[in-house]
Amino acid sequence: MNIAFDMMGGDFAPLEAVKGLQIYLSASSRPATIFCLGDEAVLQPLLHEYNIDSEKIKVIHAPEIVGYHEPPTKALKEKPNSSISIGFGLLAKGKVDAFISAGNTGAMLVGTMYTIKTIEGVLRPTIPTIVPKLNGATGLLLDVGLNVDCKPEHLNHFAILGSQYAQHILNINNPRVGLLNVGEEEGKGNQLCKETYPLLKENNKINFVGNIEGRDIFQDKADVVVCDGFTGNVILKLAESVYDVALNRQVHDDEYFNRFHYEQYGGTPVLGVARPVVIGHGISNDKAFMNMISTAEKMINTDLCNKIQESFSA
Amino acid sequence: MNIAFDMMGGDFAPLEAVKGLQIYLSASSRPATIFCLGDEAVLQPLLHEYNIDSEKIKVIHAPEIVGYHEPPTKALKEKPNSSISIGFGLLAKGKVDAFISAGNTGAMLVGTMYTIKTIEGVLRPTIPTIVPKLNGATGLLLDVGLNVDCKPEHLNHFAILGSQYAQHILNINNPRVGLLNVGEEEGKGNQLCKETYPLLKENNKINFVGNIEGRDIFQDKADVVVCDGFTGNVILKLAESVYDVALNRQVHDDEYFNRFHYEQYGGTPVLGVARPVVIGHGISNDKAFMNMISTAEKMINTDLCNKIQESFSA
Repeated sequence: MNIAFDMMGGDFAPLEAVKGLQIYLSASSRPATIFCLGDEAVLQPLLHEYNIDSEKIKVIHAPEIVGYHEPPTKALKEKPNSSISIGFGLLAKGKVDAFISAGNTGAMLVGTMYTIKTIEGVLRPTIPTIVPKLNGATGLLLDVGLNVDCKPEHLNHFAILGSQYAQHILNINNPRVGLLNVGEEEGKGNQLCKETYPLLKENNKINFVGNIEGRDIFQDKADVVVCDGFTGNVILKLAESVYDVALNRQVHDDEYFNRFHYEQYGGTPVLGVARPVVIGHGISNDKAFMNMISTAEKMINTDLCNKIQESFSA
Repeated sequence: MNIAFDMMGGDFAPLEAVKGLQIYLSASSRPATIFCLGDEAVLQPLLHEYNIDSEKIKVIHAPEIVGYHEPPTKALKEKPNSSISIGFGLLAKGKVDAFISAGNTGAMLVGTMYTIKTIEGVLRPTIPTIVPKLNGATGLLLDVGLNVDCKPEHLNHFAILGSQYAQHILNINNPRVGLLNVGEEEGKGNQLCKETYPLLKENNKINFVGNIEGRDIFQDKADVVVCDGFTGNVILKLAESVYDVALNRQVHDDEYFNRFHYEQYGGTPVLGVARPVVIGHGISNDKAFMNMISTAEKMINTDLCNKIQESFSA
């Protein structure tokens, strides 16, 4: 198993990326081969410093860097030797089985959409976020920003994509799907929800349980909650801020609030494309990077992309 | 000053309504005259029990009750002697200066829209919610559910309505207005935001400060945040649940988390209509009822509806 890892992406890269890699390698009994993408002159001394066994990794020289504020499409075009461009090249050619990066999110999304094929039948790839539930369970909310304007059919597809991820990666059997809405009853909601509800109800590939309100998001009423990417993105960022609010209020080391910390999940996968891509948070630390590698590993091991393909062709 | 008070609306009415009234009357040096609407046979003994001076109030017999699950329009039509119908009748005729109720929210909204005139120039009346900020400040988010499908012009009007409320009721001078969005820069967002941004930017009746992201909601980047009623309603309910999350995590009596409790604010005003209407939470307790009366009193004292009218005719 080969995973391409952008060592230069993220505010604290490459140091935290190297530290995350070290944690991953020392924790795995049979680790994947990691293709470390980045400036060799910078990476080699760091890898050496952190005693990373050079036989378990491959350093791929990528001298260019896509900055945080560069326009994605232009940057990818003009910087073919950036770690992001090289990563997608390796993934597209099948030289690696997954690509992970905490670099420029826009460039990662554009790279995914233009380099990696969308699975046949999927109208729109999507990005989910993990939602910690008060009872200890873990849920999924999607889309959280890839599709800010949605049609009912898109939400219907997110429901299938989210269900597949919940089942295979989160190990939730027959995941319950809810529609984020402003009321409990069928018929409630904005135009999008009113038109989406019947599609979800008739979709026999999912286990639809009805509407979910804002107050239910941290409760365990559904495993997968679907919404448009605008609402999802606002909730994602609001939920992330709950961790900071708790810290600000001197709530330290609370088992639940800690689960809101981004590092726990290590990035978000892009669902609906033919190969695993995991996009990390710009502020990723070692633990976040380690978890990004683990997420990619799980997606490869469970053959998630093929499972999704099957669910759309069935 | 006369305020019509639906004593029968709310899960814990009329008991908590009577208790809230008692607190209000004993705390005010020059209280408004409260028109207590409800079943006289039920109300009189309770008012007596709580030593409420009969000279400061007027009991108006309203033998019918609009239930929580009744279809609003039908209920109002078929129950002219319900506390809600009578309340709107008094307000429309000018016999009272404001109407407050924690009863069936749908009936309150339908009653408002059909009985009380929308202020000339206002495209859509709206309901806001109070947002507690980490630094101690208080902000406003709107719309939170009256308009689940919005056009750019609606959000532009919410910005004016919210600014007027923030200025006159929350005493915020030249309130900063933000547009809830998925990114900071102009040009970000869904179609609605992309079209709303330039309208807000050109609106000289408000102090527009740009986009606000989900993570900024509890920060103090703007005093008034505008969004469509679908997103706003999801956030409102999510934010309310933060109080329960804190309690669940054994965070008791935290000054900040306590501010998320609905009772602090005592209902939401309907903005953009010609007379003050305040709608309470179904689970209102005495403190919430007391605060609902105070909110109505402030709206009357500041002549908010006329201020809004002036801002739309200027």
